[in-house]
Amino acid sequence: MAKKIRIGIVGFGNLGRGVKRALERNPDMELTCIFTRRPEQVKKEVEDVRVLPIDGCLLVDVAILCGGSKVDIPLHGPAFIRWSNTVDSFDTHAEILNYFQKMDFLAKKFNRVAIISAGWDPGIFSLERVLGEAFLPVSKQYTFWGKGVSQGHSDAARKVKGVLDARQYTLPIKEAIEQVRRGLTPDFAKGEMHERVVYVVPEEGADLKRIEEEIKTMPNYYADYRAKVIFISEQEMERDHSAFPHKGLVLTSGETGNDNRQILEYKCQLTSNPEFTASVLVACARATCRMRERLYKGAFTLLDFPLGLLSPDSGNDLKRRMI
Amino acid sequence: MAKKIRIGIVGFGNLGRGVKRALERNPDMELTCIFTRRPEQVKKEVEDVRVLPIDGCLLVDVAILCGGSKVDIPLHGPAFIRWSNTVDSFDTHAEILNYFQKMDFLAKKFNRVAIISAGWDPGIFSLERVLGEAFLPVSKQYTFWGKGVSQGHSDAARKVKGVLDARQYTLPIKEAIEQVRRGLTPDFAKGEMHERVVYVVPEEGADLKRIEEEIKTMPNYYADYRAKVIFISEQEMERDHSAFPHKGLVLTSGETGNDNRQILEYKCQLTSNPEFTASVLVACARATCRMRERLYKGAFTLLDFPLGLLSPDSGNDLKRRMI
Repeated sequence: MAKKIRIGIVGFGNLGRGVKRALERNPDMELTCIFTRRPEQVKKEVEDVRVLPIDGCLLVDVAILCGGSKVDIPLHGPAFIRWSNTVDSFDTHAEILNYFQKMDFLAKKFNRVAIISAGWDPGIFSLERVLGEAFLPVSKQYTFWGKGVSQGHSDAARKVKGVLDARQYTLPIKEAIEQVRRGLTPDFAKGEMHERVVYVVPEEGADLKRIEEEIKTMPNYYADYRAKVIFISEQEMERDHSAFPHKGLVLTSGETGNDNRQILEYKCQLTSNPEFTASVLVACARATCRMRERLYKGAFTLLDFPLGLLSPDSGNDLKRRMI
Repeated sequence: MAKKIRIGIVGFGNLGRGVKRALERNPDMELTCIFTRRPEQVKKEVEDVRVLPIDGCLLVDVAILCGGSKVDIPLHGPAFIRWSNTVDSFDTHAEILNYFQKMDFLAKKFNRVAIISAGWDPGIFSLERVLGEAFLPVSKQYTFWGKGVSQGHSDAARKVKGVLDARQYTLPIKEAIEQVRRGLTPDFAKGEMHERVVYVVPEEGADLKRIEEEIKTMPNYYADYRAKVIFISEQEMERDHSAFPHKGLVLTSGETGNDNRQILEYKCQLTSNPEFTASVLVACARATCRMRERLYKGAFTLLDFPLGLLSPDSGNDLKRRMI
């Protein structure tokens, strides 16, 4: 039995917990350490694994960065790439190229591999968009999300005065999906593809009418969409809205020859969004090690390395069994 | 403007014609030559392109092998890899590893790149199966095909005595697909996933009852399936069954954490099966040239090289625009 890949989890929120669970289903890897800003609390939750402060020092093969894209990953990536390969789901779209270049420079300097922006979107969906466009250069692409929680929109609603807690679900508009599946290629406005439902726990005595109005007219986040605001109690929020299901679709509708319509569709249907993202990151962690064995170094997205390396099987086994 | 990639088409049947059409939609490539066993006939059909016999000699950057997997590709691959990169859709599953090893040896010897077994299945579907299994190691996978023509089953029916022509459609059983989409993971027998419909043009005075019986009980091809035989005229065959639509699905249904069901689905909905396969091959032809620029040599399936190279865009552009 080959030596197991030693994994460090950096940041222990929903995604970090998902990585811990995913490792249990991948016998070629083991969880060596959790790095966290709150080691005392995490130690209470996790008894069988070493827990160190975020700047603690322990050798792992791969650090899986499970913090947020805004503040955490841009700090943890450059810090951890000195000592180990890294994997992350960095998703600030406008910053991906910058972050890639920084990680590429450092990873090359320290002979490491960093896989960045993995997960389902960015990640698998990015890959499927690129494949769809390469195979069908005369085409239109559509990405639909939901039903699922959007963290950004939930946070935005939470900032409205009088809101104690909020949870926003993005919903795709089914007729829009059906139009594309039937072979039409409309130019949708934003609000024609998705709608939004926000569950809000208001402060006692808050002006509900004003809260609803402020949310619905919030620029960038809500103003362009059909939005619905539903007021609920703290208990209802806890009871009905603590799971993280999500769905998503990438559709490429193109034509070849004399107007022959060709439609490609990739769909995720997830009961737990963070657990699935975590599973993708864990497969990428394996790939970083297989890439180092082949002397790769630098930063990579899912577009930049041979995807057979995500599997524990050899190239020949995959050719025998899966092609 | 960079120099265009010079493409040779090897074999000019439905797939070869599809490649010619696909090249019209990819401005970075041009059709330089068609190699065929029947140059005189092809010259009548194609006036604007050089047509040479199959063993003719003209330098191209990439030869796209459009013959059959049984006889043609195993000959043309080793022949053309000496002078150019090659791309093919070799699909004799049991022989893929052998063919890969032979092409890998030759491509390395002559400093070429061969992309083998590309298309939708094998090809994209193989890739999606490997991704699904890597992301969800505790999972079951299901591939459904159809409605679409199966060449092998059509040929088999054509060999029955008294059959002038036959066209077999594979149909997925909808309830089976719906079960998987709903989160069930049954073990299907072959006949529970697909059924078959054969359109047959009988010889005059043939014993229809016997033909139907012989087809339905044919081992390997029909005996394990619900099969329906429909007799039609030559005119009906020509009028209703000369298009090549096809569909297919790869479903991966896995679980993470505490029984959280996660379902990935990849779907093709094709109006022209050969034109879509051709479009995939053309994107692969581009990739072989981009791989040579990076000094790759050897044979590759879609699992073995960075898929961003299928796109005409640079890695940085893709990161900016698609990730």
